[in-house]
Amino acid sequence: MRGSRTADRCPGLRDLVSAARRRILPERIYPVDAWRLVERRFSPRFLPQTEALFCTGNGYLGMRATPEEGTPVHEAGTYLNGFYETWPITYGEEAFGLPRFGQSLLAVPDGTLLKLYVDDEPFELTRARCFHFERALDFRRGTLDRCVRWETPDGKQIELRSRRLASLRDRHLACILYDLQMLSGEADFTLSSELVTPGVQAAGRIAPAPADPRSGRRPDGRVLLPTDSRARDLRALFNLETRSSGLRMACAMDHAFEADDPVEVEPAECIEDRGRVVFRARLAAGRRLRVVKMLAYHHAPGADPGELRFRTNRTLDRAIREGVVQVLAGHERRVARFWEAADLEIEGEPEVQQAVRFNLFQILQATARTEGFGVPAKGLSGLGYDGHYFWDTEMYVLPFLTYTAPRVARSLLDMRHAQLEKARQRAREVGHRGALYPWRTINGEEASAYYATSTAQYHIDADITFAAERYVALTGDLEFLSHGLAEIAVETARLWVDLGFYSERQDGRFCINGVTGPDEYNTVVDNNAYTNLMARENLLIAARVVELLQERAPEAFERLQQETGLELSEPVEWRRAAERMYVPYDEKASVTLQDDGFLRRERWDFENTPPDRYPLLLHYHPLVIYRHQVIKQADLVLATFVLGDRFSPEDKRRIFDYYDPLTTGDSSLSGCIQSVMAAELGYAERAYRYFADAAVMDLGDIGGNVRDGLHVASLAGTWIAVVHGFAGLRDRGGELRFRPRLPDGWTRLRFRLRAHGELLEVDLCPQSAGYRLLSGGSLQLWHEGRPLRLEGGAPIQVPIGEPPAAD
Amino acid sequence: MRGSRTADRCPGLRDLVSAARRRILPERIYPVDAWRLVERRFSPRFLPQTEALFCTGNGYLGMRATPEEGTPVHEAGTYLNGFYETWPITYGEEAFGLPRFGQSLLAVPDGTLLKLYVDDEPFELTRARCFHFERALDFRRGTLDRCVRWETPDGKQIELRSRRLASLRDRHLACILYDLQMLSGEADFTLSSELVTPGVQAAGRIAPAPADPRSGRRPDGRVLLPTDSRARDLRALFNLETRSSGLRMACAMDHAFEADDPVEVEPAECIEDRGRVVFRARLAAGRRLRVVKMLAYHHAPGADPGELRFRTNRTLDRAIREGVVQVLAGHERRVARFWEAADLEIEGEPEVQQAVRFNLFQILQATARTEGFGVPAKGLSGLGYDGHYFWDTEMYVLPFLTYTAPRVARSLLDMRHAQLEKARQRAREVGHRGALYPWRTINGEEASAYYATSTAQYHIDADITFAAERYVALTGDLEFLSHGLAEIAVETARLWVDLGFYSERQDGRFCINGVTGPDEYNTVVDNNAYTNLMARENLLIAARVVELLQERAPEAFERLQQETGLELSEPVEWRRAAERMYVPYDEKASVTLQDDGFLRRERWDFENTPPDRYPLLLHYHPLVIYRHQVIKQADLVLATFVLGDRFSPEDKRRIFDYYDPLTTGDSSLSGCIQSVMAAELGYAERAYRYFADAAVMDLGDIGGNVRDGLHVASLAGTWIAVVHGFAGLRDRGGELRFRPRLPDGWTRLRFRLRAHGELLEVDLCPQSAGYRLLSGGSLQLWHEGRPLRLEGGAPIQVPIGEPPAAD
Repeated sequence: MRGSRTADRCPGLRDLVSAARRRILPERIYPVDAWRLVERRFSPRFLPQTEALFCTGNGYLGMRATPEEGTPVHEAGTYLNGFYETWPITYGEEAFGLPRFGQSLLAVPDGTLLKLYVDDEPFELTRARCFHFERALDFRRGTLDRCVRWETPDGKQIELRSRRLASLRDRHLACILYDLQMLSGEADFTLSSELVTPGVQAAGRIAPAPADPRSGRRPDGRVLLPTDSRARDLRALFNLETRSSGLRMACAMDHAFEADDPVEVEPAECIEDRGRVVFRARLAAGRRLRVVKMLAYHHAPGADPGELRFRTNRTLDRAIREGVVQVLAGHERRVARFWEAADLEIEGEPEVQQAVRFNLFQILQATARTEGFGVPAKGLSGLGYDGHYFWDTEMYVLPFLTYTAPRVARSLLDMRHAQLEKARQRAREVGHRGALYPWRTINGEEASAYYATSTAQYHIDADITFAAERYVALTGDLEFLSHGLAEIAVETARLWVDLGFYSERQDGRFCINGVTGPDEYNTVVDNNAYTNLMARENLLIAARVVELLQERAPEAFERLQQETGLELSEPVEWRRAAERMYVPYDEKASVTLQDDGFLRRERWDFENTPPDRYPLLLHYHPLVIYRHQVIKQADLVLATFVLGDRFSPEDKRRIFDYYDPLTTGDSSLSGCIQSVMAAELGYAERAYRYFADAAVMDLGDIGGNVRDGLHVASLAGTWIAVVHGFAGLRDRGGELRFRPRLPDGWTRLRFRLRAHGELLEVDLCPQSAGYRLLSGGSLQLWHEGRPLRLEGGAPIQVPIGEPPAAD
Repeated sequence: MRGSRTADRCPGLRDLVSAARRRILPERIYPVDAWRLVERRFSPRFLPQTEALFCTGNGYLGMRATPEEGTPVHEAGTYLNGFYETWPITYGEEAFGLPRFGQSLLAVPDGTLLKLYVDDEPFELTRARCFHFERALDFRRGTLDRCVRWETPDGKQIELRSRRLASLRDRHLACILYDLQMLSGEADFTLSSELVTPGVQAAGRIAPAPADPRSGRRPDGRVLLPTDSRARDLRALFNLETRSSGLRMACAMDHAFEADDPVEVEPAECIEDRGRVVFRARLAAGRRLRVVKMLAYHHAPGADPGELRFRTNRTLDRAIREGVVQVLAGHERRVARFWEAADLEIEGEPEVQQAVRFNLFQILQATARTEGFGVPAKGLSGLGYDGHYFWDTEMYVLPFLTYTAPRVARSLLDMRHAQLEKARQRAREVGHRGALYPWRTINGEEASAYYATSTAQYHIDADITFAAERYVALTGDLEFLSHGLAEIAVETARLWVDLGFYSERQDGRFCINGVTGPDEYNTVVDNNAYTNLMARENLLIAARVVELLQERAPEAFERLQQETGLELSEPVEWRRAAERMYVPYDEKASVTLQDDGFLRRERWDFENTPPDRYPLLLHYHPLVIYRHQVIKQADLVLATFVLGDRFSPEDKRRIFDYYDPLTTGDSSLSGCIQSVMAAELGYAERAYRYFADAAVMDLGDIGGNVRDGLHVASLAGTWIAVVHGFAGLRDRGGELRFRPRLPDGWTRLRFRLRAHGELLEVDLCPQSAGYRLLSGGSLQLWHEGRPLRLEGGAPIQVPIGEPPAAD
């Protein structure tokens, strides 16, 4: 969202968040609530959005918020991280080295179904005469709760309460509590609990690319085939296998129930691709029926079906044995642990508080139990971007995780390390030395089909190395330094020295041509400044790590040499390339260039671009976009944030002043970064505006595609905008430096950070800042450039100075 | 083929042509023959190549040189110009404005089949014990002739003679003479004459893009469906319709026969997709059987099947009525008329003479009767490049046709004029004003699937305008000037002023960013010099034509205004853009830049690129190629030829010296242009080497893909290399200026040109040049800068001066 366009619509600063909501969700269906997202009216027209917004997940298993009744539905979806189908990529025209196979996240059997029949009539929200409706995603409990009261056509009144969760304690487990109570009258209830393999009846394939390249591919028929099924008592289990990728999984459901009246049970049966258990009861007024449904999902590469069945049964055995109370309690304890470090307490704007907590909670749901896998761009809330992992994990999500859940950060970095061998292979395919990480992937292989905005985005190599080094600097995880970071850094550094060259035309500086930076509206350019600067970091990190191991950890160094064939001359070469790295600068305009040719392009005619032509990528031919000065997302501005110490304050201001007005924000990755830099430069109003765009990106469906899933990077971007923007945290080299500047109207901002083994609480008011170690050790930090040393649990309170400037 | 690489292989200048042949066709199967391509040994391993090399065609109808027996075969193919199947283009990733449908030339029913059975054994070349074999493509007769003599296992000797042609007089007609003679012994002969719809039995679609993007798409099953068939006497007829494009055609065969012995005939029958007529005879020693097979093909957009049947029957009625002698004679007269203006007589190198005549003859076969259609890149000799029309028609083939067959040139320009409305639509789709001609097309719609080397090649607009203006300048065809050229020029000029902009960064010069020039190894660049210079021509031509009509032809001007909505301010704007056109020049290197960024790229490491890695496009990722100084085909060097007067002699030399060593010649469009400029600059050895590469491009299968068809542009490039290179013809503004410089060893070069209504004969010896008007009018020309005026038929003989320099 370009600032000016948003500004046109939003007259007052205070109304921004609510205005963004009104635009997309004009009915006021989300009342303010500090710890919940609440829907008080059933609104079928927002189904596509709410299925994603109210999703439940734990990073391994995710379920869209379709109702237990199964209808109404936009797109049902239960997803397992890392479980995908492959398909041969069809190109309009072939070329050497293009990836051969795509990967698409796949919907697995849907176990959310508990179909209710009252006196043999199916209960459906669209037809029921509800006199009470509430659905809430509870950020503190970590559950999706629903309460519906309705009256049947013959005047009987019924209450249905359900609670759903994907367990954070056992990532293979989901659980649904389903409570029926007869409020008045007496009725026959039939409850059909099902587990259903998705897909239309015919065998299918992954369908061609959708018109909106963001929305992800779907199968055109069934691609996940049941290979075996078992039914016993209240349990139904399936083994399944994908048609093409050959991945295997097992899933099962089991049940417990209790009721005030007798319940008749039809034990489990599996017919073709549907498992079913049926409960029948006649309830008189005031009487209740509770059914607890436990769901288990397991997949593992190469595991045989029997093994998967065994694991799935064990998950259910344990859950049934423990009972739902234990399952819930174990889950809630994990949620509480998350909030200990992750919460951002904002006083003064309750709507913002709610939006921010929603965002943080959804990051939890997207990342908590990913172990072994990555973070899909949409988490597990939809099929957008095919469930692929991108660079956003490292540059947007990892900063948050490193400070709040370092164990999760480590597991995501371990995933990249595990995929290093495939990155080496990919580098060779494209003709390079070292390793080239895939721009989009699930299994570690490149799955992109348009090189200009994928393979050309070499910067992902540096992003990964950068994030890994930052993680090490803030956590002191030396084990990862020597086992993971070192190898990644060496192989990515090799890529950079092979990719670039010392150009005689640029006084022998090291140039990198034919790349695409973060901004996908200027593709295959020469010397993208972000890329070159990040490549320089990558090279220096590699050199430093190698030298460190060589000096301090001879064994680790030796192992590194064995693993990578490292030559002693290489770090010298890396330092040389880093020192001579070329960064394009325009003397006339006194501004760093986003790339060599940027200023030579024609300026985009923003005046005559109507709002409905955004995002530009859906309305203009790529060539038209590429030949103009128009930016999809913060690119050079991102560099001024993450590599702030490489720019003078004047540089940063000139860069922001030049590039920000050209930035459409057509990517959800943009607003948070623009907000951080606007805050640093004292552009308070713009900082808040961009923050607000990021904060309601999904709640307000700013991008118009929440139907396909949440924007995880933007969710995490909200945290970046608050902590790095308003609290002004900078942490180059692992040193914590704060320069807080709260938005007007915020009376307090409080949050915690894990760093260097400590838990730091930062407590900001408009005029003063408080810093305290909750962990009781000691920590050096900086406030507005002055060093503070925290010892024990003693708080330090310091005044906040004047902001540098104003809009 | 990079000069240096070729040179390494070919020690002596004189052996170049034969060396190129030996490399690809190591057996000496093509003996020298001034007017024929002769094969004296049946060589099954060269089938893929010879099917294309010995093809017969007339520009409307083409047949690959598969034997009448049907086997052995690499890929049979009878093609009709403009008859194609469409298919939805599947992109790896979608984007706005990408073409939605591809077009692929389609094999139509094959009527070349005359299957012979001797004593019930099928005759097959691979098994027969031949004691004589000759196949010859006769350039003067315009026929493919074959004579085979063999002995059966029981010692009977038989002679088979066949002759095949696609009639130049009646483009819908093909004819096969089939003569059998019993040389010794006596045998039963069965001859099954067939007309068979191609494709495997199952219904099909056009298959995905092949790994080699040059080779074109094939259906994976049947896409051409018989809708009706008729059989009567010796005639079998089919109506057919494509599955997806909905095009309709009819084709039929009819027969005449005569024999010394009684012949038993099974009259025509059509079963499913096969028509058949069978002849049976028992021949004693010395006795003969002749069967004449006439084939007719008609297609027309929107014509109903009955109408197509009527036309097809009429074609056969007339051919059968006239008889084969008349059909042959009519055809040969047309061939003779072609040679009157087209022949290049070269004395001193018989092999070169033969290769050149082969090339010219194949242009005849690819272009003569295209009326209403274009020239597929491979003519009608194979499915390479999907049978699409490209810019090569205008920049490579039209120069030859304008001078030797202006009526054919006009018809090809009329085709572009007829497709102008679709070019207007395409411009709007991509977001431009004016008209944007498709980079590759059959029906006028853009059929390319990779914009970097298609849509971005905007220069096609200027190429078409340029060729049209040149045609008008040399022929004085004022009717085309006011009806065709004017409208084309106006709409293409509009494209250019819309595409480019006055750049403040370049002192207000007119810049054109984000385009690809002729060289497809540097794509989506800024200010490609060729493009900008040709755009300037386009703008100036448009302004001149409009002003001319306004002054001299008010009615035509008024019609132009009505057709195009022309405003009087537009020519002013065109002239302004032309005057301020930016052409990148590097002061340090004192050389015009191929594009803004060219010199900033890394130099390609030619030293370490083994020969088997060419063409680079099949062995390197596009990004690797694009970021290097490496050139697929003459680009800026092409500009120095076609716009020679825009460059000083020093400029041309510096450009050639810089860019030529970077040119791989991975495109068949390159060698001839490199030859012309090498000749102009006095690099005689290189001029000859590049000429030789172009001359044997197809005979020597230099590109390795003759199997998919002949390279029509390179065939015509041979003429360009001889006439514009060795004879040094330049014709800017329609003035003929010669600067001859014969290659060593050529004792004479004689050719004719049609220009300004005259027929000029140029007769060159190493030391002197003779010019004469065969048409008896008068003509002004220039020889080595000095004006000569030819009057009547009087020859002028002038000495040839020293060449400017040497390698």
